[in-house]
Amino acid sequence: MPLQAVRALVFDVFGTVVDWRSGVAREAAPFLARHAAGAVDPAAFADAWRCRYQPAMEAVRSGARPFTRLDVLHRENLEAVLPDFGIDPARVPAAELDELNLAWHRLDPWPDSVAGLARLKARYIIAPLSNGNIILMTDMAKRAGLPWDAILGAEVSRAYKPTPEAYLRTAEVLAMRPEEVCLVAAHNGDLAAARRCGLRTAFVARPTEHGPGQAKDLAPEQDWDVVAEDFVRLAERVGA
Amino acid sequence: MPLQAVRALVFDVFGTVVDWRSGVAREAAPFLARHAAGAVDPAAFADAWRCRYQPAMEAVRSGARPFTRLDVLHRENLEAVLPDFGIDPARVPAAELDELNLAWHRLDPWPDSVAGLARLKARYIIAPLSNGNIILMTDMAKRAGLPWDAILGAEVSRAYKPTPEAYLRTAEVLAMRPEEVCLVAAHNGDLAAARRCGLRTAFVARPTEHGPGQAKDLAPEQDWDVVAEDFVRLAERVGA
Repeated sequence: MPLQAVRALVFDVFGTVVDWRSGVAREAAPFLARHAAGAVDPAAFADAWRCRYQPAMEAVRSGARPFTRLDVLHRENLEAVLPDFGIDPARVPAAELDELNLAWHRLDPWPDSVAGLARLKARYIIAPLSNGNIILMTDMAKRAGLPWDAILGAEVSRAYKPTPEAYLRTAEVLAMRPEEVCLVAAHNGDLAAARRCGLRTAFVARPTEHGPGQAKDLAPEQDWDVVAEDFVRLAERVGA
Repeated sequence: MPLQAVRALVFDVFGTVVDWRSGVAREAAPFLARHAAGAVDPAAFADAWRCRYQPAMEAVRSGARPFTRLDVLHRENLEAVLPDFGIDPARVPAAELDELNLAWHRLDPWPDSVAGLARLKARYIIAPLSNGNIILMTDMAKRAGLPWDAILGAEVSRAYKPTPEAYLRTAEVLAMRPEEVCLVAAHNGDLAAARRCGLRTAFVARPTEHGPGQAKDLAPEQDWDVVAEDFVRLAERVGA
């Protein structure tokens, strides 16, 4: 049985637990219909908004700006991306932008996520280790029924993945050695960073995270401790 | 209906949600039987251990020492209190002290706590706002079935109650104004500090927290926004 010494499973969330692209597209569609001059593909808008995610966090990782929670970065990125779709954010009421920014709080889980997490929870402490902030993860979990034991992640560790502190401080908060914690993620890069910190690793492919033409993270790129097709199979694989 | 604008209920835990005195006494009894020379009342030992709680946090509040999580303070306090009961901590294996220190992770809820929280959760975000650290609260919740939406408190806010930052940073993490957050507590002092920060307040008396001779916190000392006999009545009172 893999993960023998593991006591906590921590999860990447955007892409691994929930389908951010469909969810953001769904939430953005009526907004775009109201404000864009011509037809805009809501999925393309979701991709463009998400494209600004890593550069925004990089400013924090590099030390160029103090830790700033993801809701704030998402809101800034929203204003930055709207002109690419012919929308002047200064002409949209702030409350409407605030509301659209909450799209990230209202993402649907993949079909196996809730059932798999419920089984895993019976054997392990389960918690998000996401770059999403606490209220984002809390709202999402409450709406989607994600049965987390605690909300961990960037706002608790004050560090964005893949900075080592994001993983190491999470283990510290759990009062566990890194090898007692396993990261579950659909992203090889996230797992590689966790492994460098001593965590155990579980890969679950999410081949449509980026839509039908997804080209990356379709398969494991290292010998991760566990590889499973979905969360229910992951639970079976680890005896939960 | 009280608490109309409130969106999150945050809870004091030791004494308000769980019965720390009975739980610590139960966990300490076999330890004391093994190590104490004569008969020791486990409840008296629980009281003595708890007595060192406020002074230990005061060192952090005053700035004399950096933020240190409660598990560490409890462990130090355990070593400090044992000689009062004729036990030399240097002669007890460290692993045994570590295990006894986990007594605080294994406290039983008051009989109404789980049922009341389940009802309140349907209407509000519910989370501990305890001086207990994240893994302490997580272990306790998992064992007792406390259905928290998130684990907040001192380790998230990096401040011990009743420091204002403990309340204000909790509201900030929730992305709420202070008046959208209500503290539920069995302690008038905790509620007074929360009210000074603009939070709403709910008092639930726990008249046996300190045992049969309890003299304080038997009744509300201010016009708290809600007063209820237990968590189920609290849920009724706020329409949850």
